[in-house]
This record gives sequence, structure tokens and C-alpha cells, in this order.
Amino acid sequence: MNDPLNAFCAHSTARLKGAPAGPLAGFTFAAKDLFDIEGHVTGAGNPDWLRLHAPAARTAPVVQRLVDAGADMVGKTHTDELSRGIFGENAHYGTPTNPNAPGRVSGGSSSGSAAAVAGGLVDFALGTDTGGSVRIPASFCGIFGIRPTHGRLPLEGMVAQAPSFDTIGWFARDAHLLGRIGEILLGADLKSAKRPRHVIVAIDAFAIAEPATADALLPAAERIAALAGTGEKRALSQQVPLGDWFAHQRAIQGREAWATFGDWIDAHNPRFAFEISDNFLRGMQVDDATLAAAREFQRTRRMELMEVLKPDVIVCLPTAPFSAAPVGQRRSAMWARRTAISTLTTIAGTLGAPQLNLPLAHVDGLPVGLSILARPGADEMLLAFAREVADRMTEDR
Amino acid sequence: MNDPLNAFCAHSTARLKGAPAGPLAGFTFAAKDLFDIEGHVTGAGNPDWLRLHAPAARTAPVVQRLVDAGADMVGKTHTDELSRGIFGENAHYGTPTNPNAPGRVSGGSSSGSAAAVAGGLVDFALGTDTGGSVRIPASFCGIFGIRPTHGRLPLEGMVAQAPSFDTIGWFARDAHLLGRIGEILLGADLKSAKRPRHVIVAIDAFAIAEPATADALLPAAERIAALAGTGEKRALSQQVPLGDWFAHQRAIQGREAWATFGDWIDAHNPRFAFEISDNFLRGMQVDDATLAAAREFQRTRRMELMEVLKPDVIVCLPTAPFSAAPVGQRRSAMWARRTAISTLTTIAGTLGAPQLNLPLAHVDGLPVGLSILARPGADEMLLAFAREVADRMTEDR
Repeated sequence: MNDPLNAFCAHSTARLKGAPAGPLAGFTFAAKDLFDIEGHVTGAGNPDWLRLHAPAARTAPVVQRLVDAGADMVGKTHTDELSRGIFGENAHYGTPTNPNAPGRVSGGSSSGSAAAVAGGLVDFALGTDTGGSVRIPASFCGIFGIRPTHGRLPLEGMVAQAPSFDTIGWFARDAHLLGRIGEILLGADLKSAKRPRHVIVAIDAFAIAEPATADALLPAAERIAALAGTGEKRALSQQVPLGDWFAHQRAIQGREAWATFGDWIDAHNPRFAFEISDNFLRGMQVDDATLAAAREFQRTRRMELMEVLKPDVIVCLPTAPFSAAPVGQRRSAMWARRTAISTLTTIAGTLGAPQLNLPLAHVDGLPVGLSILARPGADEMLLAFAREVADRMTEDR
Repeated sequence: MNDPLNAFCAHSTARLKGAPAGPLAGFTFAAKDLFDIEGHVTGAGNPDWLRLHAPAARTAPVVQRLVDAGADMVGKTHTDELSRGIFGENAHYGTPTNPNAPGRVSGGSSSGSAAAVAGGLVDFALGTDTGGSVRIPASFCGIFGIRPTHGRLPLEGMVAQAPSFDTIGWFARDAHLLGRIGEILLGADLKSAKRPRHVIVAIDAFAIAEPATADALLPAAERIAALAGTGEKRALSQQVPLGDWFAHQRAIQGREAWATFGDWIDAHNPRFAFEISDNFLRGMQVDDATLAAAREFQRTRRMELMEVLKPDVIVCLPTAPFSAAPVGQRRSAMWARRTAISTLTTIAGTLGAPQLNLPLAHVDGLPVGLSILARPGADEMLLAFAREVADRMTEDR
């Protein structure tokens, strides 16, 4: 495969020919190397995982649905190790090139999928999003991407990370194709989707973004509010600051990730980039009391926010606090940026809510994305409205 | 090189021809891949370290002394990553075979040096010992090995770990050659060395060993006491239990190792086996108060023990609490065993004292070593007495 972006796994030859006459016939896609393809080993971004696992017995249902709908799967894409990174800098396989931000990371963990879509190597791609792994690379690469409602898509045949937050998402350069994929995967007809009427511009989320990013995205949020009908600027989280949310998600996600991978790590002492081990070890150290408090915190936030997220409401927030980070950043810089990123991505994670990245702005020539977020189950509303936004709004640059 | 033991680094071609007529002419040796050889990159057991460093500008003085004395350096040997392991299971380069304990590790971090000597690939080998990295593989492989007094040999051209404890040691199958190497490196004449007259059999150290290991080594300790003159069984540490010593050494060693490698790790986010990262992260988290308390603890122990370690006294203790661990042990088992090992190796580390492994016993067919330890500076006494022990004692099997 001609892959100038290092988006595709060199260790996998997995390809699937689409059904001849489906609604996605003629489209090509790639799947993050967390998805099983029958007869191929799923590598999950780590050479020891690849080495120690057998070929998959069957193809993941989401992949199969797309192939059955006519799309050709043309390759597996790079991921951060075991989906545990947010920048896409895989120490074993290299860093996919961000086609829209030279010298910058593509974001992760669905790094190769985002790069392959942004660079035009495929029409769309599957990723996974536990703590931001579709939303962040979509924002960094300047493409559309959706993290759907937690629990809406079957996770069989996907390497899990933290079940309370794991989702399957997808990327496209075009909001119409993004919606068509949604129709196939969700079994939905976007023509009958509800339309948002009220937009909350989450000023507490905007306050977390760097000023240049917030300034670039705020006009787009205001135009979206005008397009929908009414809008208001308010803090999304009025009981506790957004900054408090992440510590709780990190506790649950870290502990669950250790529950998922800890026995394998204990048995094989695998090689990871230092930062990946650091991340796992923080999860290993989360105690039961911290975990219980975090689950209670999240339950309270969900009850509180469901009062706000009426069926016709969407929230506008920056997808990431800044544009794509430079390639080869220091680990300490990585941790600082990661905390800022996760403070934003934790909102949808905590609520189980769908969130869709709209590539609507640039800062210093680098893409930054605006997200629309809605109550759990309202994926169709987001996908349909994203089409409307794409048709009606053009970016001021 | 014919290396059935995976003792030698495949990535290095470093070899040095010995001076034609020196006292070590005709002997071959290997050097752990922490020692610089002019024109070659020192790999330190980690492929990212190897990739990111330039060839050495000059050869380490200890290596040069041996070559100047006529010995041929025939290769570089595997080490745990950045000398941060104790079992020799390098996740990148594989595990050297223990020639005297099939299916077991050779011990580390001077794994390849010990295996190469035990398997007869070389006559002797250089290692390093910060927390046990010569003593443990000597014990596991059933060969002689010495950790000399801290500060006696120049550490230039060696990849440092924790300066308060870093030493250069060496291995041989034969106590006489071990002593000859000592004469070259220490600039000493063993014929004029003091002879020990009193032996302390450290019952607190024996109590840390597994019963079978303690039972196998105790008769040898008693015969050594008889050979020296007088002996007594007593706890070496009478103010605090030996078990308390290790926490303090771990704090200092971990913090110093982070001071040594932390900036490089921060800059490059390198790949390590999970357990190596875990080890580094524990060191990174040591705070100033813990560090200060640990240094004070060690100062107190040194003052206390210098009263006991008179110039003609040696201490007998088990080198390791058990024979060589199985290859492929779980990480959690590794940590438990490592703590037990370090409780014994910390004694010499804390005191800055020399310690020499005598391969005097077996348990279930696997080597276990008895150590002799003396006050700092008494390296010659240990080396000379080891010859006497080797000449006078044969192992009962």
C-alpha cells in the first residue's frame, strides 16, 4: 500500500472486499489495529501483544457490517499501545504524519485511522474512543469524527480497555459520509432524526482551552447557535468545576484498564514506552475507596447533566484545548497537555454522551475542532445536524 | 562468535587485542555493555539508548587496564536495561542461558558476563554492581564474583546508575584468576594482604534466605570460620532488623537512578519492559524528606557496623536467598523475589563494603553462593582468602 503517512500497520495484510452492491460500494476504509479480522492477529499497537496472540477467529461485527454494506477494508491502522495514548506517538511503529499539520502529531490513540482519512488514503476509518481517542485525532487532523453514545455499538472483536468508557467511533472528511456510516452502523435513518433547537456554549469548557483556540472556535459556536435556533453561554457543570471531573474518570479508567490488561502484563512483562507504563501503573495503584468515590461522582454528574441535556439541546465545546502537539515532545510536556485534553474529553466519557468533532477552525494554520455533544442516544441528531452545519457554514480563515 | 548462551550483544562488534606480553596475556574476557569501547556505541541493554547515543570517544579505564595487562576483550555482554534489573531477562535481547541451571535465569544485571564465564566462553568478565548486579548472577551461575569497595575503581566510561552505590566488579570460574584480575585493577599484591582471623556468621542474613539455601550454606560458613580462626553466630544488624535496610537503599538508589536517567527518559520516552519503568517510577516518586531520612539511616548503620567490622573480621552471609529463579516468571513474583534478594545485597551497598561470592553449594542441583564481606578497603583480604578457601574446601554435594 502506498502509505506516505505511516498510517497503516506494516505487520498486517488484513484486507476485506466489500459486498458488491451495498450502499457503501466503492468506498474504502481502514480499521484501527484493535479490531479483529478473521485469520489475522490483532496487534493493538504493541509488538509483544502481536507476538503473543493468535489470529482472530472471526471479524469484529462493526467491520463486518461495513463490508456487508459494500465498503472495502484496505488495511489496519496504527494505534497508541493498547489504546493507552492520546498523541499517536507509537514508540515501536513510529508516528503517523498529520497531513494537515506538518511536524505535529496526528493525535491518538486512533492515530493511523485519522491520518489515513485526513491524507485521503481511505474514504473513512474506524477508531475507538475511551478517553478521547477519536475526538482528539479528529480535532488535530481537521476531519469529522464521532464518539457515539456509550453502549450503542457492539464491542465484540475489539481489544477492550476500560469497559465503562469504551466506544467505537469513525472518521470522515465529509459530514455526509460520516452520517451514512452512522446510518449503517447504528441502523438509523438520519432523515427522521430530531433537530437541535437550543445550543449551550459551555463557557467552562472554553475556559480550559488555550485563548487562541477558544477565540478561533467561539464564533463558530455562536453561528451554530444561530443555525439551531436559540443559544446561551453558560457553565456546563454548575455544581463542581470541570477540572474536578477528570480525576474521577482517570481513577475509573485506570483501574479498569489494569483489570483488562494487568494479568497479561503481569504474565509477560511486555515492552511499552515509558509513558504507557506510567499510565498503567497509576491505574494499578487506584484503591477501592477512590474507585467507589469516582463512580458516585460520575453518577451524580449524570443525574445533574441529564436535567440540562434536554432532547433538543446540544452543547458546543472545544474538542481539544489546543492544536496538534509537536512530534517528539517531552514526556513531562506530554503529561501536562494530556491532563488539559482529558479535562475536556471526560465530559462525554462521564455522561456516556455522543460527541462529534466539526473541523471548523484553524490556529496558526493548524486545525482545531469544535465539538457538538448531546444526551446519550442522540447520535442521529448530531450526525444529521453536522451535515447541516457543513452545508451551511464555511470556515473563516 | 560462537555464543550458544545468548551472552554476547549481537549489536556490537567491539573487540580489543591485549598487549603482547602482559601478566594476563592469553586470557580472554568480556565486558558488560555498560562499558565504553572507543569507536563503539555503548548499548546499556536498551535499543533506544543504543539508537540515541554516539560511539564512545575513549575506552573505559578499567577495560584499558585489562587490555594493557595482556587480556583480549572478545565481546560485549548483555545486561538488564540500564542495569536496572536483577534477573537478566532482557525484554529486547532475550535472556542469557544459565549454563549451570537449565531453565533458570543467569541473574543480572551483569547477566551476559556471568553466563559467558560460567559457560566457558571467556576466562573472566567485567560487570557492574549497584544493587547486586555482580553478586546475584555469580550466585545464580555458580562462579566467583566480587563487588569491590565503593569508590576503589574509576567509573569513567561506564554508564552510571546510582553514584552512591555504583561499583565495577568481575567474575571468574577460578579464585586464583579472580585474584589476579584484582591485582591488576586494584594495583595490589595479594601476597601482602591481611588474613581474616574472625568470622561473623550473620544469622539475621541467613534467616532471610529460604531454609534449603540457608541449610546448604551454613556448613560452608562454619568451615570458613574454622579455616580463619574463630567464629561466632550473631545478628549483623543489632539496632534495627536487616529488613529495614532495603527500603532506605531503594529510596536513595531509585532517586539517584532517576537523577541519572530521568532527563533522558523525559526527552525520549524510551521503550522499557514494564518492570523497568515501574522501578524508575518508584524512584521518581521518592521525595526529599524520604531521601534525607534514608541517607541518615545509612550513615548511622555505617557508624554502627564499622565497630563490628574490625580489620581482621569477615562476615559470612548467603549471597542470594535462593537459587536462580525460573525463566519467564511473572512480574509480581519478580517483585517479591527482588525484595528478598535486595534485603541481602543492601548490606554491602549501605556500608560501601566489598563482598565476594564463593560458589560453594547447590540446592536441588542449582548453584547457591556464600558471600564473604569485609570493611571498606579490605578487597585484597577477601580476594586472597577466597583463594585459600578454594584451595582448602571442596563442596559436599
